[in-house]
Amino acid sequence: MVSKSNAKFIKSLQLKKYRKQEQCFLVEGAKSVLEVLNSDYELKQLIATEQFINGHTSLLSHQLEIIETSAKQLASLGTLKTNDAAIAVVNMKPQREIRLQPDEWAIALDDINDPGNLGTILRIADWYGIDTVLASAQTADFYNPKVIAASKGSFCRVNIYYADLPEFLSKSQLCIYGAAMEGGDVHNSSFEKGGILVMGNEANGISADVLRCLTKKITIPRYGKAESLNVAMATAIICDNIRRSQ
Amino acid sequence: MVSKSNAKFIKSLQLKKYRKQEQCFLVEGAKSVLEVLNSDYELKQLIATEQFINGHTSLLSHQLEIIETSAKQLASLGTLKTNDAAIAVVNMKPQREIRLQPDEWAIALDDINDPGNLGTILRIADWYGIDTVLASAQTADFYNPKVIAASKGSFCRVNIYYADLPEFLSKSQLCIYGAAMEGGDVHNSSFEKGGILVMGNEANGISADVLRCLTKKITIPRYGKAESLNVAMATAIICDNIRRSQ
Repeated sequence: MVSKSNAKFIKSLQLKKYRKQEQCFLVEGAKSVLEVLNSDYELKQLIATEQFINGHTSLLSHQLEIIETSAKQLASLGTLKTNDAAIAVVNMKPQREIRLQPDEWAIALDDINDPGNLGTILRIADWYGIDTVLASAQTADFYNPKVIAASKGSFCRVNIYYADLPEFLSKSQLCIYGAAMEGGDVHNSSFEKGGILVMGNEANGISADVLRCLTKKITIPRYGKAESLNVAMATAIICDNIRRSQ
Repeated sequence: MVSKSNAKFIKSLQLKKYRKQEQCFLVEGAKSVLEVLNSDYELKQLIATEQFINGHTSLLSHQLEIIETSAKQLASLGTLKTNDAAIAVVNMKPQREIRLQPDEWAIALDDINDPGNLGTILRIADWYGIDTVLASAQTADFYNPKVIAASKGSFCRVNIYYADLPEFLSKSQLCIYGAAMEGGDVHNSSFEKGGILVMGNEANGISADVLRCLTKKITIPRYGKAESLNVAMATAIICDNIRRSQ
């Protein structure tokens, strides 16, 4: 079982303040924990049911601290309503310097607030072979349990870099495309081999300082009457258009 | 204020059983309530704050029963965490017979379980000018408050028809496209002027009985390593490919 003080520590990682202080974060549920066990992330602790441990012995290194517990305690420690598998306490990776190649695509997020949207965008980036996501400081925390859950394991393969977007973008040699209401039709747009796709805040779109850095604005044409598309859906549609044009 | 018995009635509409019995459903929050006030749906009651009522007098007919209440009571009556505007109790529309034109597109949902996914798909259909969604009996309830919320008002413009999908599809003259793992590349597919796009269950995809009805299977090509795309994202991407090919 998990000791009282360890339970307190694990629960504290639901909050950004303590994640930052401890430099570690939570990964919950069978699928996500299996992804992180197979990734280059380093685990600090694995809290898991007997069944999960016995079912995945080949993945569990001898150096790893493994604590056996019940599904009930897993649910009480984490953010998932039910969890009959495992919670991993994982060390954050140090943020490395970004070097985008001329034929590489990245997504830049200008204040994406909703953790579910950020996680979904990581999953989309991963589907479309985009390994790098740049994010403004106001964007949701990559290590938020809701982001990790919504990314469906893609947090292991997509790297995020929190940066001052106007500063970074203004120095970049790549073409910078931004999703905006009054841009060119994405169906008739040509895209360079590499570039940066900027997606703006859910309510306010791309901020004025970032708008100034764009090479080209693009728009998803509307055929019906919905007022808008969700930012994650818009990201998926634009990524699909970029890849099919290449 | 809302009487005790009326409060009980309103709360009961969070459950499908009572929605079916009473033939009405809840619409919550300023944006969605304004959409339904501007639609051809008939309101049974409007429960709203003084501010909301005073701000929208021109939309409120004299026949409509309007009950003034507090934001606190609105939150306690409905499913939203906070609601400082209104809840509308709305009469369901009778399900009409579906007649798809040869140049019309529809989406068919084969057991979409998650209300959020259904609501998001309604929003996508509305964006891409698709007015008709067919749904298997096991698909989430269109009138579930989570569906209404996720549709962002699109429930007013997109009509749903619950039907026996294999029976309906086998009689249809339209081309029937289905999203499947082993289909033709959506980027190289040609689409007819009209057709039906079938999207399958979140976990199991399209069922065997519906698979037999497909004219063509289509797949969204993957460029990276994510295991899958969410069904609502996949719907958005395929609808975008259909519209851009026409």
